[in-house]
Amino acid sequence: MAIDLRSDTVTRPSEAMRTAAADADVGDDVYGEDPTVNDLEAAAADRVGTEDALYVPTGTMGNQIAARVHTERGQEVILDRESHIYRWELGGLAQLSEVQPRTVDTADGVPTPEDVAAAYVEESLHRPGTGLLTLENTHNARGGVAVPPESISAAAAAAHDRDVPVHLDGARLFNACVALDVAPERMVRDVDSVLFCLSKGLGAPVGSILAGDAEFVAAARRVRKLFGGGMRQAGLIAAPGLVALENVERLSTDHDNAARLAAGLDAIDGLRAPEPDTNIVQVHTDALGVDAEEFVATCEDHGVRGGAHGPTLTRFCTHLDVDRADIETAVERVAAAVEELRD
Amino acid sequence: MAIDLRSDTVTRPSEAMRTAAADADVGDDVYGEDPTVNDLEAAAADRVGTEDALYVPTGTMGNQIAARVHTERGQEVILDRESHIYRWELGGLAQLSEVQPRTVDTADGVPTPEDVAAAYVEESLHRPGTGLLTLENTHNARGGVAVPPESISAAAAAAHDRDVPVHLDGARLFNACVALDVAPERMVRDVDSVLFCLSKGLGAPVGSILAGDAEFVAAARRVRKLFGGGMRQAGLIAAPGLVALENVERLSTDHDNAARLAAGLDAIDGLRAPEPDTNIVQVHTDALGVDAEEFVATCEDHGVRGGAHGPTLTRFCTHLDVDRADIETAVERVAAAVEELRD
Amino acid sequence: MAIDLRSDTVTRPSEAMRTAAADADVGDDVYGEDPTVNDLEAAAADRVGTEDALYVPTGTMGNQIAARVHTERGQEVILDRESHIYRWELGGLAQLSEVQPRTVDTADGVPTPEDVAAAYVEESLHRPGTGLLTLENTHNARGGVAVPPESISAAAAAAHDRDVPVHLDGARLFNACVALDVAPERMVRDVDSVLFCLSKGLGAPVGSILAGDAEFVAAARRVRKLFGGGMRQAGLIAAPGLVALENVERLSTDHDNAARLAAGLDAIDGLRAPEPDTNIVQVHTDALGVDAEEFVATCEDHGVRGGAHGPTLTRFCTHLDVDRADIETAVERVAAAVEELRD
Amino acid sequence: MAIDLRSDTVTRPSEAMRTAAADADVGDDVYGEDPTVNDLEAAAADRVGTEDALYVPTGTMGNQIAARVHTERGQEVILDRESHIYRWELGGLAQLSEVQPRTVDTADGVPTPEDVAAAYVEESLHRPGTGLLTLENTHNARGGVAVPPESISAAAAAAHDRDVPVHLDGARLFNACVALDVAPERMVRDVDSVLFCLSKGLGAPVGSILAGDAEFVAAARRVRKLFGGGMRQAGLIAAPGLVALENVERLSTDHDNAARLAAGLDAIDGLRAPEPDTNIVQVHTDALGVDAEEFVATCEDHGVRGGAHGPTLTRFCTHLDVDRADIETAVERVAAAVEELRD
Repeated sequence: MAIDLRSDTVTRPSEAMRTAAADADVGDDVYGEDPTVNDLEAAAADRVGTEDALYVPTGTMGNQIAARVHTERGQEVILDRESHIYRWELGGLAQLSEVQPRTVDTADGVPTPEDVAAAYVEESLHRPGTGLLTLENTHNARGGVAVPPESISAAAAAAHDRDVPVHLDGARLFNACVALDVAPERMVRDVDSVLFCLSKGLGAPVGSILAGDAEFVAAARRVRKLFGGGMRQAGLIAAPGLVALENVERLSTDHDNAARLAAGLDAIDGLRAPEPDTNIVQVHTDALGVDAEEFVATCEDHGVRGGAHGPTLTRFCTHLDVDRADIETAVERVAAAVEELRD
Repeated sequence: MAIDLRSDTVTRPSEAMRTAAADADVGDDVYGEDPTVNDLEAAAADRVGTEDALYVPTGTMGNQIAARVHTERGQEVILDRESHIYRWELGGLAQLSEVQPRTVDTADGVPTPEDVAAAYVEESLHRPGTGLLTLENTHNARGGVAVPPESISAAAAAAHDRDVPVHLDGARLFNACVALDVAPERMVRDVDSVLFCLSKGLGAPVGSILAGDAEFVAAARRVRKLFGGGMRQAGLIAAPGLVALENVERLSTDHDNAARLAAGLDAIDGLRAPEPDTNIVQVHTDALGVDAEEFVATCEDHGVRGGAHGPTLTRFCTHLDVDRADIETAVERVAAAVEELRD
Repeated sequence: MAIDLRSDTVTRPSEAMRTAAADADVGDDVYGEDPTVNDLEAAAADRVGTEDALYVPTGTMGNQIAARVHTERGQEVILDRESHIYRWELGGLAQLSEVQPRTVDTADGVPTPEDVAAAYVEESLHRPGTGLLTLENTHNARGGVAVPPESISAAAAAAHDRDVPVHLDGARLFNACVALDVAPERMVRDVDSVLFCLSKGLGAPVGSILAGDAEFVAAARRVRKLFGGGMRQAGLIAAPGLVALENVERLSTDHDNAARLAAGLDAIDGLRAPEPDTNIVQVHTDALGVDAEEFVATCEDHGVRGGAHGPTLTRFCTHLDVDRADIETAVERVAAAVEELRD
Repeated sequence: MAIDLRSDTVTRPSEAMRTAAADADVGDDVYGEDPTVNDLEAAAADRVGTEDALYVPTGTMGNQIAARVHTERGQEVILDRESHIYRWELGGLAQLSEVQPRTVDTADGVPTPEDVAAAYVEESLHRPGTGLLTLENTHNARGGVAVPPESISAAAAAAHDRDVPVHLDGARLFNACVALDVAPERMVRDVDSVLFCLSKGLGAPVGSILAGDAEFVAAARRVRKLFGGGMRQAGLIAAPGLVALENVERLSTDHDNAARLAAGLDAIDGLRAPEPDTNIVQVHTDALGVDAEEFVATCEDHGVRGGAHGPTLTRFCTHLDVDRADIETAVERVAAAVEELRD
């Protein structure tokens, strides 16, 4: 059977999650009456040290709600050029909030204070000015880089000095916290809102959390309704989310597996796979003279699934449904794939 | 304990639904790999006789996706003035699709062909023209009216004659079908898309279906992603939706209970409660000289929950969590509330 | 040569206007340095008694800027169903401001306080609430009705009681003032912004004025730039606008001509033309059994141009380029057209 | 009196233009009946070799109409990071078209084919894809660089190979044509639409031209109405535009003056002013240790007006209201200002 390393979004709920779903006490969350959703939102806020939190069906919705709440139409959003919000959310910034991205080319995914200062635009007759800074941690497209809290805080300070709010796309926030051994409260201490996913590495089937202060969350709740995210007896899927919050510590296993995978792949002649910070392994096939599409297809033929993320860049993600033995097998299979590609 | 008649959205999932959730075979639905979601979409399309169907987290999202897919910016949407899409979806038509409603005052919730003809606007230098007709069945704000299929077809024909597509907000589609003993296929035969809820009377905790032809559903799938509705292992909540599809026939029980409730309330001096078509009972308190807010509050004190839907209009909904005995009790309690209000 | 009664927008600039254009002192208005524009804005504000005013290229832009400044996305705008803003501006409310109209069927074009009360929507979880009331005076589609200032003030008071701002589309404001012998200051006294055209009856080739308090106008200036209305040496066309402000009194001539035209047409067997308030004459051809398109075409063949404004409703406008003799001729020509249509 | 080099937008209309305005034959352009506007549109289309052309009140409106006509919501627009459309039009791309810029850092203002290839995004489940490439010539923020037609054509070819249309912001198109001695037809040969200003260097008081094929212009005409740019007797300001078209050749004088100005300024110790391609002179004051705001203020005190365009970057524009003697005087005055700043 294929070893699926396309994304940690493919993880399947555990038995504990399924049982939690089956046993969930539910109510109508649009009326604020679903006790399980309320518990989850309280637990999630507690986990990251914010005043309040909101359960949303997807990370994309959470990020787009945050952009909408923080900005006025026409304002600019400073973000890394490879941000998920900019690249993979169907132009939602323009379509849902009518704001204009100002992208920054960063070394490791997080704009420096100097980047923020340079990208900042004051409101004038010709410009609505900068309305938001968004950060991403871990940074997906830059290879799951775990951005240290000092970098987050420094960028946030540069924004706040200019009265610009800061949103953190922490779809894989806990991967960063575990990799750097930093408490989530510390990681999000200086941002105005944070999104993190209960799915992905934490393994919940569905759902993300958008957290911030009470005023932000109240505004976010309204936008969630507008975007069609106001679900009813959502406790049934919030319950596995509560279980998922217990999965934070085990992310280190995914990181170990990723390190092992990268080392194994990097040892294959023709591949280059830098040591990863977290659970995302980037493999370059330029030396092999093979593009990512073909490499992915050949790996798939050999029973390993990954994703093409650039002309010669392939991404593999580790997650709770692959163990160390799978990693060993994956390396062998990719080696065989490379062998075939050489012929 | 209070008898909750505020809405059929408060229904809780059955044991069968909970078991289905716990046992669901799941995958990543963004990749189209969740077998349960795929099964549900196929079953739902089959149920209403369309080519394809899409699972969405809420009815609001489904309606707004449909408006977005069918229209161009600036076009007009013909709809009844009391439509849910117009009244209760946070101005989504304007915010998400940038279209302009042209409301029609209808007798029973559905525009006649003459209404459509009169409201239709041709594209011109000054006007983008009419881009969509939306219908609603059952019609919520008009008291759960079950609109006969002939009315749907006639309105749709008037729209199609003018090359205007038609969307049916069938949040309570099956209530209409059961009340009128009409097959769902017949009810939606002449519309281009239909939304129906698995929650509400069918009892699923979360989720709705947006159905239409394959081209429509493919476009809708993209908009769902944009709006943040592209969930991952959604099979876990889609599974109860499959069970919910088996709950169609039992809606007649809700209708019987509503009729009984209306008759009981209408017999109370000071209240007027017309015989309902389906599961929505409208109670007028003008004769009592009491406004709806106060009436609802007093009923709540007496253990019956409803909702104020107009200055002197209160709505009660029957659903699968209330039985005939509850109805008898509810009538007695409301009678006591009225007694108190008279003092 | 044809007598052109299609609209008072067809008026041509006078010699005085042309001379004013040729002699205009100009500067860069984006920098606020065009003395003629500044003069015009000051004179216009003075004319209607507001704190400030803004020159805009068209009435449509002025109205849409006002809607944008006064509202938040998703809010509702209360307006008469036959409003120009709603009907003839390409869905700009939805496309440019993302607001949702709530139309009112009024007797004479202006919502009563009761209409406003009934249409008002409070902000709630499901609704962004009412954000604006717009009025129109004279009311174009209702036949150039001159709405009395008491009606404007009453509607405005009903809106203000609910913290809803009021915009007056006074494209033909001075026609109403002259017809009712009311000072412009009085007419706009209770609204928060007013648009009036320098073109149309006042005869300027191009341009309108959007007036209000200083804060409103500052915000409007930004939106004007966004919409592409920030012109440079606009003094050249603002200068004829200053001349146009002197044309207010002569509007009574247009009204006399319109009354004469209506009387003449009404006397033709088969036509019905109610006595007009101002310069817009509505002619009904239902009794003749001829639809407006055909009637307009036949009149055109006989040398009189009008516009079809409904299935059997034709509009003729008087203006400064037609005099009493033209009116007499026009009546004769229409009579001949009717004769032909009868054959 | 101050020598105003802030922008070529400050130019005042000539006597010939004023006479043309006074004598213009006009009509209602919304009905397509203004002969002067029609003449101007025909002459303008002829000048650049396109099928049709549209008169618009501002360059900003023209650019934003083009973006709106060419794109679908959510698509990406490839453009240079310093483009006017991106920087100075109030976020119109997001606000009016809901598209997302993908900025490119170019050497001289125009993306290379490689830039286009790298920035191009294919439509996918997560991305609406690239919808437009916009170019700018001359390139304002990069110092009035005259982009050679081969670069325009190469970038356009790279876009067309991917079915992406191309818009050219040629606000100063004729400056580029004159500087490079290239026919306008050649310059715009490979783009799908072009905007050029009649104001700025050509000296018309108001107005720009948006040109393209007949289908494009028809669509643009509708969007112009939506944005509030459908003026009535616009012939009065179109007439000076016709005169402005005769001013193309004289732009070489502005270029000579700019070259002379740059040489003079560059010779001042502490200033750096590279030789300009056209009429825009960029002066760097970093060596002087003075920021642009202060430099501009001091120059103004000495009777020369410029604009701060970066931390230590000041822009001076030559135009038809400054002659060679003014340039000599300007250099002397700036030298005195620098003297003062040194003290």
